[in-house]
Amino acid sequence: MMDAPAAARTPLEIREAPLLHAATLAGEIRAGRLTPADLAERCIATIEAHEADVAAFAAFDAEALRAQARLPGLAELPLAGLPVGVKDIIDTADLPTGRGSPVFAGHRPASDATVVRMTRRAGGIIAGKTATTELAFMQPAATRNPRRLAHSPGGSSAGSAAAVAAGMLPIAVGTQTAGSVIRPAAYCGVTGYKPSFKLIPTVGVKPFAWSLDTVGLFAARVADAAFAASAITGRDLQLDEAASAPRIALVFTARADQASPAARLALEEAASAAARAGARMKTLMLPDEVETGDDTHAVIQAFEAAHALADEWDRHRDRLSPQLSAYLDDARNVTPDAYDAARRAARRARHALADATRDFDAVLTFAATGEAPEGHASTGSPVFNRLWTLMGSPCVNVAGLSGPTGLPIGVQLVGRFGRDRALLAAAAFLERAIVER
Amino acid sequence: MMDAPAAARTPLEIREAPLLHAATLAGEIRAGRLTPADLAERCIATIEAHEADVAAFAAFDAEALRAQARLPGLAELPLAGLPVGVKDIIDTADLPTGRGSPVFAGHRPASDATVVRMTRRAGGIIAGKTATTELAFMQPAATRNPRRLAHSPGGSSAGSAAAVAAGMLPIAVGTQTAGSVIRPAAYCGVTGYKPSFKLIPTVGVKPFAWSLDTVGLFAARVADAAFAASAITGRDLQLDEAASAPRIALVFTARADQASPAARLALEEAASAAARAGARMKTLMLPDEVETGDDTHAVIQAFEAAHALADEWDRHRDRLSPQLSAYLDDARNVTPDAYDAARRAARRARHALADATRDFDAVLTFAATGEAPEGHASTGSPVFNRLWTLMGSPCVNVAGLSGPTGLPIGVQLVGRFGRDRALLAAAAFLERAIVER
Repeated sequence: MMDAPAAARTPLEIREAPLLHAATLAGEIRAGRLTPADLAERCIATIEAHEADVAAFAAFDAEALRAQARLPGLAELPLAGLPVGVKDIIDTADLPTGRGSPVFAGHRPASDATVVRMTRRAGGIIAGKTATTELAFMQPAATRNPRRLAHSPGGSSAGSAAAVAAGMLPIAVGTQTAGSVIRPAAYCGVTGYKPSFKLIPTVGVKPFAWSLDTVGLFAARVADAAFAASAITGRDLQLDEAASAPRIALVFTARADQASPAARLALEEAASAAARAGARMKTLMLPDEVETGDDTHAVIQAFEAAHALADEWDRHRDRLSPQLSAYLDDARNVTPDAYDAARRAARRARHALADATRDFDAVLTFAATGEAPEGHASTGSPVFNRLWTLMGSPCVNVAGLSGPTGLPIGVQLVGRFGRDRALLAAAAFLERAIVER
Repeated sequence: MMDAPAAARTPLEIREAPLLHAATLAGEIRAGRLTPADLAERCIATIEAHEADVAAFAAFDAEALRAQARLPGLAELPLAGLPVGVKDIIDTADLPTGRGSPVFAGHRPASDATVVRMTRRAGGIIAGKTATTELAFMQPAATRNPRRLAHSPGGSSAGSAAAVAAGMLPIAVGTQTAGSVIRPAAYCGVTGYKPSFKLIPTVGVKPFAWSLDTVGLFAARVADAAFAASAITGRDLQLDEAASAPRIALVFTARADQASPAARLALEEAASAAARAGARMKTLMLPDEVETGDDTHAVIQAFEAAHALADEWDRHRDRLSPQLSAYLDDARNVTPDAYDAARRAARRARHALADATRDFDAVLTFAATGEAPEGHASTGSPVFNRLWTLMGSPCVNVAGLSGPTGLPIGVQLVGRFGRDRALLAAAAFLERAIVER
């Protein structure tokens, strides 16, 4: 809901940026109190006010957005004409798709990616391409964190998270191969939803590691992410208002020592809030087969990236960043035997995780190591995300808490594979518990 | 091995077309008895002699092939400069990739597909793009069966099978989503090898159904396919000369009534030959969960195709064939719930198949319903292939038998998931048993 005037800004941060609440805005449009054209103008105004600071976009065309918003019949469709940002590794036939790399500067795909078509069919307007790290790896985008411009927005879906956090757009599409949806959502203080593996098709998404690459969504709050996911996929992922209080497993993982004190405090605060609100909480140790998932993820990602980016490596190495180049050079040493062993380990870990979490609706754990790192040299660590991407589990970053410097600290809820609706209900429960704590 | 002079041709069939044996030719090159340039000239001569009749290619550039064959150092690489055909739904940056559809006429991808890069790295030369049915569905390519031009070569990898069968190329890359490697190999009388799901990456292959699309290879004999697969993937898939006689399960499936009497005769002949050669044979009934795989395949393929081809449906419907258009129109009715149920059924079927075939090296079954159908209106039925694609099992078409009209009839060996090497060894055993019967 846009209930504040155009946000004031300082050179340091986008203060009072009013998040655009997708579910509410769609309701307003359906009720005739708002038109897609009005909403597009609000988005354009916010983008024009803040884009110079935030740099959320790789491609943006205000006139094209206006033209699309005037198309008849949008209000009757599920997304009701809401503008949607699309990460720039996702193909669009009518907007350049530069993939955050000079190799693809100005590249114009022949087709829209499937998720882009699904969004358009649902009545969403593709508002622009959001900035990505280089080929969705680690070389940062130009994007800055709207909560504090001197800090990283996270990566790789930097522009998608920042556009929603800056109130520029109600919905943005991103992808996660390690931690590229949940981490930027946590750093920017918005909802990030990484669905179960392949729930949203990856056709037309530049591959990095095909067993891991997952399309996800950014929105203001959990209800908005659930609304957007339902509208785009045609699945019933709407919040279950009748859901009973969730059973939540609190999981610190073997990597808990990499969480900052502030992240630990936030996780404990979230757990307390959930418990006070009636959730049945239990601290859970993950089985060893699951805890080794980080190493397994590293092997699978490297082997697949060395293959997926074979053309870039062979023909365009001089235009890759030193960071990506070094990664791919190393990645070529992963043997097929090591890869096969890792895939078997991942399968065993998925079974072990399913067994260990059978009695829970969600796992509550860290979303990131702490507040967004200062500076723009690094997009932060995906250490608390890799395992869940490997597991194919649905994940939600729940916003609402903040750290000692005032930047957001997210907490992560992880659901059971294919049980996205239950996860989203649990996430909405936790979000409310945090607000009301 | 090219041990015959340039093939004579008639308007009816390519008689005496000498298949090019990849493993032997690579050995000749490595021994210095043949150069990649010489081999390229032989291929060009055969292509120029027969392409007007066979129409195996969507794009072919003799000068480019000559230029590549002159590059230094090829002989030291695993593929030793062998020319390789690439199905035209697979991206190549230096050759148009028209995907068998007017929608993509002249389309030039930005990157090589991963399998193209893997082939080049291994010292293979991309000889041209081989004809595909429309977007790898059922609308036939212009390709004709080199064994008898009035008959279908099968589909969708029509050009890849025909190019190898016509002695134009020693190796060709294809893909299978239902039966598009094994069936054309069976009709054209060459070896077709569909590896375990995702053994060869699909990055850069136009998706049709992402849970099913599998990259495969065509070559003269099993040893040539094993050689090519080893060279391209860097995996040890070479024939195990020390392998003991395989344990083979003879499986007719619940669809056996769709096999022609000739196909049944061929299957029984193959089983007898294998038994005489020392294979331990046992007739096996598949569990019900496995036998329902065809219905499961249909649901998964339709749901995914409706999504994968969303852009073609939304923006280019007028340029799709009536057949594909009607299929996609129907496919849109598959609900996410039906799709999810089918995916669960597929998972159960994979477990049931693994249990049922635990004591065997391979399943011996039909490769196709019979000889290649006359005429070019249909590419034939994938009824004996869908299940195995859904299972992700490695499959080989073993050539060597023929039907009452003299056209080839293949038989299919199906291995256990990930046990491609054992399957290829069993296939070589069966091939020898058929030759020596």
